[in-house]
Amino acid sequence: MAQKLRGIFTPTLVPLDDQGQIHERELRRFVSWLIDRGVHGLYPNGSTGEFTRFTPEERRRIVEITCDENRGRVPILAGAAEANVKETLAACEAYAGMGATAVAIVAPFYFKLSPESVYAYFAEIGRNTPIDVTLYNIPMFASPIDVPTIRRLAAEFPRIVGIKDSSGDLAFMMRMISAVRPIRPDFTFLTGWEAVLTPMLMIGCDGGTNASSNAVPEITRRIYELSIEGKYEEAMKWQFRILELFDAMLYPFEFPDGFRAAAEFRGFDFGLSRQPQTPTQRSDRESLARVLQCILADFELVSPPPGGCAVRTGQPEQDKIKQVVRDVLQELEKRGVV
Amino acid sequence: MAQKLRGIFTPTLVPLDDQGQIHERELRRFVSWLIDRGVHGLYPNGSTGEFTRFTPEERRRIVEITCDENRGRVPILAGAAEANVKETLAACEAYAGMGATAVAIVAPFYFKLSPESVYAYFAEIGRNTPIDVTLYNIPMFASPIDVPTIRRLAAEFPRIVGIKDSSGDLAFMMRMISAVRPIRPDFTFLTGWEAVLTPMLMIGCDGGTNASSNAVPEITRRIYELSIEGKYEEAMKWQFRILELFDAMLYPFEFPDGFRAAAEFRGFDFGLSRQPQTPTQRSDRESLARVLQCILADFELVSPPPGGCAVRTGQPEQDKIKQVVRDVLQELEKRGVV
Amino acid sequence: MAQKLRGIFTPTLVPLDDQGQIHERELRRFVSWLIDRGVHGLYPNGSTGEFTRFTPEERRRIVEITCDENRGRVPILAGAAEANVKETLAACEAYAGMGATAVAIVAPFYFKLSPESVYAYFAEIGRNTPIDVTLYNIPMFASPIDVPTIRRLAAEFPRIVGIKDSSGDLAFMMRMISAVRPIRPDFTFLTGWEAVLTPMLMIGCDGGTNASSNAVPEITRRIYELSIEGKYEEAMKWQFRILELFDAMLYPFEFPDGFRAAAEFRGFDFGLSRQPQTPTQRSDRESLARVLQCILADFELVSPPPGGCAVRTGQPEQDKIKQVVRDVLQELEKRGVV
Amino acid sequence: MAQKLRGIFTPTLVPLDDQGQIHERELRRFVSWLIDRGVHGLYPNGSTGEFTRFTPEERRRIVEITCDENRGRVPILAGAAEANVKETLAACEAYAGMGATAVAIVAPFYFKLSPESVYAYFAEIGRNTPIDVTLYNIPMFASPIDVPTIRRLAAEFPRIVGIKDSSGDLAFMMRMISAVRPIRPDFTFLTGWEAVLTPMLMIGCDGGTNASSNAVPEITRRIYELSIEGKYEEAMKWQFRILELFDAMLYPFEFPDGFRAAAEFRGFDFGLSRQPQTPTQRSDRESLARVLQCILADFELVSPPPGGCAVRTGQPEQDKIKQVVRDVLQELEKRGVV
Repeated sequence: MAQKLRGIFTPTLVPLDDQGQIHERELRRFVSWLIDRGVHGLYPNGSTGEFTRFTPEERRRIVEITCDENRGRVPILAGAAEANVKETLAACEAYAGMGATAVAIVAPFYFKLSPESVYAYFAEIGRNTPIDVTLYNIPMFASPIDVPTIRRLAAEFPRIVGIKDSSGDLAFMMRMISAVRPIRPDFTFLTGWEAVLTPMLMIGCDGGTNASSNAVPEITRRIYELSIEGKYEEAMKWQFRILELFDAMLYPFEFPDGFRAAAEFRGFDFGLSRQPQTPTQRSDRESLARVLQCILADFELVSPPPGGCAVRTGQPEQDKIKQVVRDVLQELEKRGVV
Repeated sequence: MAQKLRGIFTPTLVPLDDQGQIHERELRRFVSWLIDRGVHGLYPNGSTGEFTRFTPEERRRIVEITCDENRGRVPILAGAAEANVKETLAACEAYAGMGATAVAIVAPFYFKLSPESVYAYFAEIGRNTPIDVTLYNIPMFASPIDVPTIRRLAAEFPRIVGIKDSSGDLAFMMRMISAVRPIRPDFTFLTGWEAVLTPMLMIGCDGGTNASSNAVPEITRRIYELSIEGKYEEAMKWQFRILELFDAMLYPFEFPDGFRAAAEFRGFDFGLSRQPQTPTQRSDRESLARVLQCILADFELVSPPPGGCAVRTGQPEQDKIKQVVRDVLQELEKRGVV
Repeated sequence: MAQKLRGIFTPTLVPLDDQGQIHERELRRFVSWLIDRGVHGLYPNGSTGEFTRFTPEERRRIVEITCDENRGRVPILAGAAEANVKETLAACEAYAGMGATAVAIVAPFYFKLSPESVYAYFAEIGRNTPIDVTLYNIPMFASPIDVPTIRRLAAEFPRIVGIKDSSGDLAFMMRMISAVRPIRPDFTFLTGWEAVLTPMLMIGCDGGTNASSNAVPEITRRIYELSIEGKYEEAMKWQFRILELFDAMLYPFEFPDGFRAAAEFRGFDFGLSRQPQTPTQRSDRESLARVLQCILADFELVSPPPGGCAVRTGQPEQDKIKQVVRDVLQELEKRGVV
Repeated sequence: MAQKLRGIFTPTLVPLDDQGQIHERELRRFVSWLIDRGVHGLYPNGSTGEFTRFTPEERRRIVEITCDENRGRVPILAGAAEANVKETLAACEAYAGMGATAVAIVAPFYFKLSPESVYAYFAEIGRNTPIDVTLYNIPMFASPIDVPTIRRLAAEFPRIVGIKDSSGDLAFMMRMISAVRPIRPDFTFLTGWEAVLTPMLMIGCDGGTNASSNAVPEITRRIYELSIEGKYEEAMKWQFRILELFDAMLYPFEFPDGFRAAAEFRGFDFGLSRQPQTPTQRSDRESLARVLQCILADFELVSPPPGGCAVRTGQPEQDKIKQVVRDVLQELEKRGVV
């Protein structure tokens, strides 16, 4: 049997070049940097990797580059959702051939399916996949996978080996663990909601697939390690800090642009998003990015912005306003106005 | 300037063959049958056409077949949403070349975008499209398009010529009409929610893109004609009947399988859905289809099922139960048991 | 059998005095003014009447004043919901004694109940009420009443004589009418959502209980009359205008404060709301009220504000901004600054 | 300054007699039993205490009985929400006079208020209350209290001393703690969602107000104690078990009837609910109660039902079916049929 998936898997951001195409060199550099910073695995074609904004060919290329650059260093969990079961299975086959450890497959989206249909979809995959499958539950974007469905799938399909859940709902995670672990002790539970990573590890999760690890892989790893060692008090200190960063990357931006903005401060060029932005949005992004820089500077992972940081309120929108006011005053000072 | 889009556009179902591939011959036969039954236009690659379950190449092929079979008889509104703006614009170009009248583009889905981002997305399209564009608002599946966004887009981009709204919200439709018609009298308002087709036409809509017209094109056309003639009382008689059918096609099935089941009674073979079904679902489908057959028989569009129809309650689930009981009794009678 | 309830019932606002107590004299004056302006009935203790913000004794007093002032001129539909079935039945008895025509009872709120429990609640009332009962469905505030529940209640309890629905969902109203009218032709369907009053009347509603009729009783009555005469085109002209007013009273204010603000322009003093307001809210209210005054002036029901009205955009928030800018400029002009 | 509120407060169920009136003797016996079983405090007039189903006079009487029976043994947190600010302040005064330690006040319900209005409501209370106030956030039933609002209230009103949150959202609790603790180290955070009691205590909550403590006060206390001692592994064993019980009391019943049913097995007579039940519901309740009895028997707090317990599936609905099948078989066996 394969090794159980554990630890923090980075749902890798995809750098784009001037033409909006996959920036292969930067992606390779980013992949190796993440591995060097200690992430336990990589998860290309996740929501953070904006899989829906790429063509089927591009999605394959992203996994290919990731696996190739990885050179077996860490396990790869490849997002394999395509337009229908047949296409998804073809992607599974392709990713198995590229050396992925397992695939992650989001429940069908756009149409909201009933539990019975979600079961039917994954059952067809479970019966035919040539590679281990992790289910991906993200009810804010896709058809929800409920506890009885998880249990049926875990009971019937050995190739379905885990679930990644991005609901952030602790009680739901506990219900899944209660329902599945007795019959499938090998089943992996990963949380996609790092806002509650420490509590999720405390209640029994095996790890996480966390967008924040694109920007602060050192911190998500530290939280994971402190938590599995039972050092919850110390883990929680980092947890409160990562929550502040997570909120600042998540809410004021269109997902996952805030994570791109933060990871840029680590020395990468992600290029313009494929989702167009208005001039207003581009100017907002600059101010918001400065707030991110200040939070990252507190972690001592990047330098503070020129002119330093305003004291933060813990409320991103207000922080942005304070930052803007401060910048304007500095500009005026420089010009001798005040 | 192009002719304003008016009337009932059928969001065409796609027949599949034994291999789950597009059944071209049947699709052609279906397209011509719809035109012969009086639909005002065709709308390939809509939600009813399950556009998300096909590959980009298949979506192009569906429009190609539709345009070719149409031979200019009715306007074609081709669904052109792809993975990102660049791909969507390429589809627009392709469909213009195939002779489509206009394209319909759903707001970005999976990620739920803010109004500003929805604007940015359609603005980029509005600036570059070589063919007229109809916006497609379907908030239950995709990012919502709100009234100020519609207004901005209508004011700035002459190539954006209309909106198809599937919310079924009359007040929302009135707000859009109030905000846009004074500045763009040519702008088309189409409703995708035939449950309220007559009231939508009464308040000023120009037509509809209605899944039900796959099964009963004669009736949706009749409702349209009676309504534009101001014969609301008569229109409402048909409206109440189409509501019963719509509910019976929509709620007990996974969309759009109930519409496929109904259209099969008109003499077409749609094949198995690409969304797999469990044995329970397949057996349910048979019972539910018999209810649909009974409703269609009341319209005198198809024959009643062998053994006739139970009196309906107007509540699909109960009707199904009654039908099943009746069938079991008939079977027992046949065998001389009762 | 009692007369079927028809027409526009005003869910009466309650004027408060300086002490925040029911302002009896003003309430009497308002009741008579509404009757004089042609409303078909009065509905004290509705949501617009803020029934939850009064004590049980005050709710009784409000009905008592209303019935007394009415002197039999129009039917009174008295809101009778209390803390539990026993208290609600006691209120029914009291209102019967005061001369109310019928009572309206909202589904239980705070706790969200299942359809079976909603049925159980109204069944107990239906069995024991000494006065006709109208169900009140307002799913945004209270447990929803679904179609099968309505049907069961209508079938079993002759004293349940109608439903007031504030969902604004046309298809839902049609489903109720389909399910109930064949078995209870006397059953009354009233809409509480005047945003779609004309379409609701067109599909078969008997009338409405509409908060807007507190401010513009003449207009809601006109829409009702034009609609029942089948003059939908003319009705829709007023419908679009009342939608603008409704939106401007509903969305920028806490309900029902916008309706209070508008009705004040008709010459009544409603006093401060029992829901406290911050200074920011009080200053916003002034600006928003000026927008309402402008809309009411267009109806030629009140004078425009001193200095006249800015051209409206149809979007209340923007209208408010325009109005404020205009006011500031006027003030500056007055002072000779510009 | 008053002692900080800590530990598990029981939102006390209210026993009713044959006439549906408060069963004072049983309530006294229950209150003393809870204190003897080690709950840290009592919380009359909570949602579990069905405060909305009592009259204002009855609510006062419930607090009076509770305080009197308590005789100063544990702190009392009295639910004081009434129809409006003035009535609520009168209740605060009354409860202060009865010896309550503090009051808990739910955000306004029925009408869904904006954050500014929620602030205005609690500010008025904070300015005038003669007794410490705990805010009560329960977004599924009442207007939500958001983080900026909490922070404003905590910063401005020393008499507002804590919040009880029933959302069960860990990240939200962390955001509140982050925003408030630096400025108000005395502020109390209580969770009303025992499904996640251990994780909530781990992230820094001071305790809980948990309906389950009506039925198993020993267990909720044990979870609290193990958690504050940092024995999370052992706490989680009990946490998983209380989750099973919680789900079985919460979901298949109308709230809080499942908690009443469970507490009845501890030797109390709660009488019929004020929310009427249909015969179907009453018969369902019996089967569901047997499942609860089996779970409680596992805790060795009550005897198993006659005939013993079926092995549970962890899914209440299925457990109920299994239990019913088992009961029927036993009955048949008894009659010698099988």
